[in-house]
Amino acid sequence: MPTVRLTKRVQFSAGHRLFNPELSDEENGRLYGKCASPGGHGHNYRLDVTLEGELDPRTGMVVNFAELEETIRREVLDRFDHKNLNTEVDAMRGLVPTAENIAVAIWKCLDPNVAPGRLVEVRVAETDTNIATYRGEGAD
Amino acid sequence: MPTVRLTKRVQFSAGHRLFNPELSDEENGRLYGKCASPGGHGHNYRLDVTLEGELDPRTGMVVNFAELEETIRREVLDRFDHKNLNTEVDAMRGLVPTAENIAVAIWKCLDPNVAPGRLVEVRVAETDTNIATYRGEGAD
Amino acid sequence: MPTVRLTKRVQFSAGHRLFNPELSDEENGRLYGKCASPGGHGHNYRLDVTLEGELDPRTGMVVNFAELEETIRREVLDRFDHKNLNTEVDAMRGLVPTAENIAVAIWKCLDPNVAPGRLVEVRVAETDTNIATYRGEGAD
Amino acid sequence: MPTVRLTKRVQFSAGHRLFNPELSDEENGRLYGKCASPGGHGHNYRLDVTLEGELDPRTGMVVNFAELEETIRREVLDRFDHKNLNTEVDAMRGLVPTAENIAVAIWKCLDPNVAPGRLVEVRVAETDTNIATYRGEGAD
Amino acid sequence: MPTVRLTKRVQFSAGHRLFNPELSDEENGRLYGKCASPGGHGHNYRLDVTLEGELDPRTGMVVNFAELEETIRREVLDRFDHKNLNTEVDAMRGLVPTAENIAVAIWKCLDPNVAPGRLVEVRVAETDTNIATYRGEGAD
Amino acid sequence: MPTVRLTKRVQFSAGHRLFNPELSDEENGRLYGKCASPGGHGHNYRLDVTLEGELDPRTGMVVNFAELEETIRREVLDRFDHKNLNTEVDAMRGLVPTAENIAVAIWKCLDPNVAPGRLVEVRVAETDTNIATYRGEGAD
Repeated sequence: MPTVRLTKRVQFSAGHRLFNPELSDEENGRLYGKCASPGGHGHNYRLDVTLEGELDPRTGMVVNFAELEETIRREVLDRFDHKNLNTEVDAMRGLVPTAENIAVAIWKCLDPNVAPGRLVEVRVAETDTNIATYRGEGAD
Repeated sequence: MPTVRLTKRVQFSAGHRLFNPELSDEENGRLYGKCASPGGHGHNYRLDVTLEGELDPRTGMVVNFAELEETIRREVLDRFDHKNLNTEVDAMRGLVPTAENIAVAIWKCLDPNVAPGRLVEVRVAETDTNIATYRGEGAD
Repeated sequence: MPTVRLTKRVQFSAGHRLFNPELSDEENGRLYGKCASPGGHGHNYRLDVTLEGELDPRTGMVVNFAELEETIRREVLDRFDHKNLNTEVDAMRGLVPTAENIAVAIWKCLDPNVAPGRLVEVRVAETDTNIATYRGEGAD
Repeated sequence: MPTVRLTKRVQFSAGHRLFNPELSDEENGRLYGKCASPGGHGHNYRLDVTLEGELDPRTGMVVNFAELEETIRREVLDRFDHKNLNTEVDAMRGLVPTAENIAVAIWKCLDPNVAPGRLVEVRVAETDTNIATYRGEGAD
Repeated sequence: MPTVRLTKRVQFSAGHRLFNPELSDEENGRLYGKCASPGGHGHNYRLDVTLEGELDPRTGMVVNFAELEETIRREVLDRFDHKNLNTEVDAMRGLVPTAENIAVAIWKCLDPNVAPGRLVEVRVAETDTNIATYRGEGAD
Repeated sequence: MPTVRLTKRVQFSAGHRLFNPELSDEENGRLYGKCASPGGHGHNYRLDVTLEGELDPRTGMVVNFAELEETIRREVLDRFDHKNLNTEVDAMRGLVPTAENIAVAIWKCLDPNVAPGRLVEVRVAETDTNIATYRGEGAD
């Protein structure tokens, strides 16, 4: 049967501050610029989750979009939406909340939960112009 | 010469109902939810067709965008646009009109008709948030 | 207090066929072109609802966006989403389902239900390029 | 001479929490829902500033877009971008940082600074679906 | 009958250079910055044309979108699309090709040709962030 | 460590005419249609640059988005923005300024300048519907 990819796009709003407490204020400022601003700020994150799988001829589906949406809601949105990524999200504990780290963390939340689909890409757009994409390569 | 990809984006509007006549109404409802609503509904489908080929140094082109657009018009839009995907489109005969099946069917319409380009991806967005992508893998 | 406008954007998918049963097939074809195609088709409609009201200094709100969203869900989406606009929507009974008629019908659904806000505009985009806007002028 | 409107679109990212310290936690929760989440969150705000003025036949301009952009940068972006709207922005002092209050506050920042243009609209989109518009009506 | 507005969105690509030959090079540079660059450049212009009129109960239309599109093609796109706005467009003769002047010129092209609709707004977006809007006010 | 991709999106406006001086006017017209229009025209080009690299656990970054933006500004925007691609851009010398050739030329500008990231894709959208993508394959 054909192998087809599904992409589900969702959005969430979260707060963050780019800051590594193990570095000096000066080095944080040099690395993160205005993103290290002390009061914190936030973004509307756009998340594109892509699975692949074999097309089931009976249903015409790879996985059910409604079930995928429910999985993303439970595993990602309930944890990340309207939360502070520095202090309130277990999946981000100990990580500087860059788009790159958010993409890897969301991969880890979703990867065990999308069978019979296979997770192939997590894409996190922090703004319309800054996007991080993770495809599961090099994971520990 | 460099190998370059071209993507042409078009849109079409079509009607559909997600329903497999070989299943019970109850199972259709469970599988397809509101998409099984009896009166049918429809979408503005956004279609991204991607080819690749070698850049011709004389023209600066891989294939002519105008010819690609004409091929898509003839092979896809004339058959799918403002049609009912359950009843009026030969390429969808016998298939539940999911985004996945539409992507595979459009691949079959276009693949024999894009030389000297090579079709590499057909991407069908049923809505801004539900997207199916087919890359010719696993075709019968 | 300042008078502020709120716009809530939602989307719904519905089926329709532009056809007036009181006209001949020939006249329907001349008026509506491919939109009169017999099997029907459909669209992802984008709906922008705009209210105005006085800013409440205690809440910082004109009306609560969450309540406005709930009103639109109850009065519009539950009636229009994934429905056939020619046959399944009471608010469209006897009307050719053009974007213009849809905008006026949605105004009538919402206008009695948005106090203390005042409805000032209903904007219906049938596609990215065809948009109808109704501001309550000339209503019967 | 023709009177023409200019709209300049910019974006900024800021943190906020919807919370009125004069209300009980329970009432804050009831009013603001997940937007009252204690750690705060944030948004990519899209700001559309519209001026009107007479077209100068010598320059073909109403006001110079480059000067308008510089005014918005100095009066708004330098104060709001990558800041916490509850604690770090003087123009928001004492105000719950709703989209409505942000729109009115930005109007007050810009209105004295756009001559010979006349400010006619400030539009703040907190997300793609929640938008507040202020036209200077009812100002104190 | 209800008065409804229709907006038709189209796009065209054109070349221009912001330069007034009656001014010195220095003053042109000061006024127009990089837009006065001598080789010229260009844009994808997005044009939104808005009419209003009474809803015809027989057709459900104010004016036929297909006819409006044809009028815009004939009166605007055939003259502006893939043309140089400094040298090849009669409607722009003697005008610096700013977004403001383009909006007024397009108004003059369309206004005599949209009956029984009434032209209410011409909106020209030179980029996603620079937009000029003309509503027929102050015309000579 | 995880390998992550970063995409930075920028825009530039440039003028061009599709025309190969080694071909006859007739053949240029046949190949390029209205894009061969003698006065030239232009576009708002949207450029997506994608790098990949290993996530640095200390910074949470692959490469610093701010540095990538600065590299794109220096190597691409300063050369292409508000320029005529037929006559004013060294990187396009001798090339017909198609989207395909622009993508390859921008790859050559960026590839030596993005270490420790690795350039994996340059995507040039001439309009919303015509897009060329180059991944460094087949380069001379």
